[in-house]
Amino acid sequence: MKVLIVYAHPEPKSLNGSLKDLAVSTLESAGHEVRVSDLYAMNWKAVVDAADYGPYASSPLKINSDSGRAFDAGALTPDVLAEQEKLLWADTIILQFPLWWYTMPAILKGWVDRVFTCHFAYGVGEHSDTRYGERFGEGTLAGRRGMLVVTTGGPEAHYAPRGINGPIDDLLFPIQHGILYHPGIEVLPPFVLYAVDRMTADEYADAAKAWEQRLLTLESTEPIAFRRQNSGDYEIPSLQLKEGLEPAGRTGFRLHVRD
Amino acid sequence: MKVLIVYAHPEPKSLNGSLKDLAVSTLESAGHEVRVSDLYAMNWKAVVDAADYGPYASSPLKINSDSGRAFDAGALTPDVLAEQEKLLWADTIILQFPLWWYTMPAILKGWVDRVFTCHFAYGVGEHSDTRYGERFGEGTLAGRRGMLVVTTGGPEAHYAPRGINGPIDDLLFPIQHGILYHPGIEVLPPFVLYAVDRMTADEYADAAKAWEQRLLTLESTEPIAFRRQNSGDYEIPSLQLKEGLEPAGRTGFRLHVRD
Repeated sequence: MKVLIVYAHPEPKSLNGSLKDLAVSTLESAGHEVRVSDLYAMNWKAVVDAADYGPYASSPLKINSDSGRAFDAGALTPDVLAEQEKLLWADTIILQFPLWWYTMPAILKGWVDRVFTCHFAYGVGEHSDTRYGERFGEGTLAGRRGMLVVTTGGPEAHYAPRGINGPIDDLLFPIQHGILYHPGIEVLPPFVLYAVDRMTADEYADAAKAWEQRLLTLESTEPIAFRRQNSGDYEIPSLQLKEGLEPAGRTGFRLHVRD
Repeated sequence: MKVLIVYAHPEPKSLNGSLKDLAVSTLESAGHEVRVSDLYAMNWKAVVDAADYGPYASSPLKINSDSGRAFDAGALTPDVLAEQEKLLWADTIILQFPLWWYTMPAILKGWVDRVFTCHFAYGVGEHSDTRYGERFGEGTLAGRRGMLVVTTGGPEAHYAPRGINGPIDDLLFPIQHGILYHPGIEVLPPFVLYAVDRMTADEYADAAKAWEQRLLTLESTEPIAFRRQNSGDYEIPSLQLKEGLEPAGRTGFRLHVRD
């Protein structure tokens, strides 16, 4: 495999840092190639602005069209071009981050906001009344697999189906489906560690073992069965799921996962 | 009212900029006080790092405890202290942003990550096996009301209950419940404008009228009926919703809204 790890944690001597280092050594020992985008170490610019599009920044600024024109012209900034090149190089893409306020840290959101430009990660393919682009299972990054590695402060019960934070699968849906699957990446089930601030050394040893096991079986892991936009499951152009495709009573984000 | 608008859009001459200006003029004309945190204009630092906690940054860095100790000592950075002061001043808090990749832009996430420190927005109140803090309806910002103002590129159908993006209420839940309600803010229904890149002048006029109407009726608008953590609806300490409180078949984020 060619694995890109996009890693967003400010402290190398953290549990997240240890898990990232373990992933690199485990994958390389198994003969895989690994590249890491360590966003804090790279001092990644998190905020989209006109400077991202150079001479293609219009006035007033229009993120969608300006980013698409800068992409087409090869005129995006070197930091963004380097990340797009890594995504195209990789066959496996891991986003690793601590869950802060129920989603990713700002530095990683800023990686998405800046790297996932128009014509690269969206605005790909024909957009018309009969076809709404190559998205959700198709697109620039089709053929690749990805997954999230997430740590939480709160205990697992709080993220359970009846937990007060909401189910972890629903919290991660906008990232797994909306960010990874949108440009075509097949999404493997996430690796989530809960209550990491209270983790004992023994618990960490178990977690590290479980993470190694996931890494060594990535190639045979089945992706989440998200529905493809252009598979016939959705009305065009409303992109509403056709009636009757889901088990009785299913609602919300889970509609978009096949049985 | 004392209204704080936290506004995250890079282009003043945008539809978002117009809506923000309209909010300020409408509210001030009606006799209310308004303060605006225009994050792009402020060149807001989006990324949490050790510099945020000065001498209270431990090595290795621990965001939770370090931010809490810096908060307790009044040693947070001036930009963060100013935002906390505005939140305490306000009785009404509006977060306005374009939906980028199904959530807020990085600059606004970074406002949350940095301003919502431990002992201010979380880690408040007793945490034990019988009580898990003052959260979700209680906390530092209790007594205040808040709401989201959101624009999307995609059309409303894609955010409908069966839409491919997921229902807008579910996409906003981690922000409305996890960020606003968590430190005690009662959350009013959001004001969402869809497909804004294709909006005509007539449609904008209608949207502006609807936004004015919302602004002038904020004080009488009923908040979303999120369940209070310490109301008796949840098991302690698992914070799972007790069985039988919801209508048959309801699952996911909606469990946490009363009928």
